[in-house]
Amino acid sequence: MKAVVFDETLKLDNNYEKPVPAKGEALIKVKLAGICNTDFEITKGYMGYKGILGHEFVGVVEDVNSDDKSLVGKRVVAEISYGCHEPDCEWCNQGLVRHCPNRHTIGIWKKDGCFAEYITLPTEILFEVPENVSDEQAVFVEPLAAACEIVEQLHIQPIQKVLVQGDGKLGLTTALALNAYNYDVVLAGRHQNKLDIAKAQGVKTILSQDLKKEPVYDVVVEATGSISGFEDAMVLTKPRGILVLKSTVAGSKEINLAPIVINEITVLGSRCGQFKPALRLLEKERIDFSPLISGVYGIDNAIEAFERNKEKDSLKVLIKFDK
Amino acid sequence: MKAVVFDETLKLDNNYEKPVPAKGEALIKVKLAGICNTDFEITKGYMGYKGILGHEFVGVVEDVNSDDKSLVGKRVVAEISYGCHEPDCEWCNQGLVRHCPNRHTIGIWKKDGCFAEYITLPTEILFEVPENVSDEQAVFVEPLAAACEIVEQLHIQPIQKVLVQGDGKLGLTTALALNAYNYDVVLAGRHQNKLDIAKAQGVKTILSQDLKKEPVYDVVVEATGSISGFEDAMVLTKPRGILVLKSTVAGSKEINLAPIVINEITVLGSRCGQFKPALRLLEKERIDFSPLISGVYGIDNAIEAFERNKEKDSLKVLIKFDK
Repeated sequence: MKAVVFDETLKLDNNYEKPVPAKGEALIKVKLAGICNTDFEITKGYMGYKGILGHEFVGVVEDVNSDDKSLVGKRVVAEISYGCHEPDCEWCNQGLVRHCPNRHTIGIWKKDGCFAEYITLPTEILFEVPENVSDEQAVFVEPLAAACEIVEQLHIQPIQKVLVQGDGKLGLTTALALNAYNYDVVLAGRHQNKLDIAKAQGVKTILSQDLKKEPVYDVVVEATGSISGFEDAMVLTKPRGILVLKSTVAGSKEINLAPIVINEITVLGSRCGQFKPALRLLEKERIDFSPLISGVYGIDNAIEAFERNKEKDSLKVLIKFDK
Repeated sequence: MKAVVFDETLKLDNNYEKPVPAKGEALIKVKLAGICNTDFEITKGYMGYKGILGHEFVGVVEDVNSDDKSLVGKRVVAEISYGCHEPDCEWCNQGLVRHCPNRHTIGIWKKDGCFAEYITLPTEILFEVPENVSDEQAVFVEPLAAACEIVEQLHIQPIQKVLVQGDGKLGLTTALALNAYNYDVVLAGRHQNKLDIAKAQGVKTILSQDLKKEPVYDVVVEATGSISGFEDAMVLTKPRGILVLKSTVAGSKEINLAPIVINEITVLGSRCGQFKPALRLLEKERIDFSPLISGVYGIDNAIEAFERNKEKDSLKVLIKFDK
């Protein structure tokens, strides 16, 4: 089968062995997949991963290796990680499989990803896509779930002021999700055209250059991925407020963490989320992701899709497997 | 009066004007004061403060500028900050005067400190010292209150594992306080003699070099003040655990904040605390601070006391005003 494989270099392999579902796994024919910045980071060495890339997709179940064949023929999405489910695993026991130390993470850690014609996955992490949700919307469920994770981790009071910093796909998705949850959210970014995507769906927006550097936000979500964005976030967060760290910030400059102590700020690391609330938002059509699509490429042009993803103005680039 | 004044240089002024209490203020004769690392930081330029240094003390009220003279003759300690109490100040209204943007902070911001024979302070921040608490113990109430702040901010489950990193006076005080609250606390540090102070009062201790770098602690308190201490703390905190940032860490090296996101760690900035719970711990004699005293100097030798405070093996250095 065709697959986008990373092994020191990124390449399209036209003869990758088609996977066979293990006991409890489904064989899924991938329809549409999305490129995430994590995929790009992996091509620069992140996690030391080698194998098929990709963890955002929608596909159709062709077979299930178990007696229960009820998923066959269903259109599905899949959560990004699955746990060991050993009886003594405190993380699996809590339902927090995404922190299980022996977890598999699709296309990132110990499990081939979805940039291929077929993928096999445990049925426990599959979710049927509601009929009214198109493939183009469903493929956003994983980043949307990551945005909804904030609401799982943190009780934001409805009267609190929320700022999302960064108008890339992470910031846009987060602002759209928090707006869908009816929070008083402002999205700040450097690109008017990107801000306008959120604005058209009811999010208040502001150019970063116009944002006063004052500690007036109860919750600030850092989604710029830069140390200077993190520093700004510390300044913008009220005393005793919450700074949600969504992007994996690594710095090449000095950083002063004193504002966290002086203003007793809580920095909350936030990563992946559960699919059910995200699927409900999609089913209710509370967010339209189509303006975030910067390109759709056939699997034969997958390498070109990665090049498109690197471009500054790019948001979400999709890889299509259907003819 | 004699006063230790910082104005570009640190000096002992033998003829500083004795303060006069404003309406609602008490005139307090200082008995004993403690040098904090913040005092030392101020002499290096922190906060741009100029004036009498010091915010840890015990003294006796000589007069009160109000009709209520009930505090006269009482031995008191004082919280570090007082707010504006304007009707529309959201911080004062919440009782969080220590985050009031117009607050005064003793010996740090807009208010002369306690390294002087007399200090005037609003009676609202004064607390009478219980009779069984000696001056030498009472002078530790401010750092003890800062340690107790963790318990105010955070509900630690009794079965959770707590690690305090750093065996300086901040780490020791924090470990002793959390131990007094009956938590399962381990203190890690580089100095066996300092660890032994906590060990003698029932705290489990470990040399940092013997500490396995594994994410097994539910709560890690960073009290080393170094970026590498903060990095270690990120590694030692369990996924979804709490990293309490007690020391104002400023770095001169690159830092990677990705572990906060990947493991969804909460970093909780923690600064000053309320005096009442700290005074209760002292009254109950749950902690003995005398082993932390590295020297007691008369006011005439205050500059020497500051020199002693700088030495590596030093913990708490006190300045005595009584003959």
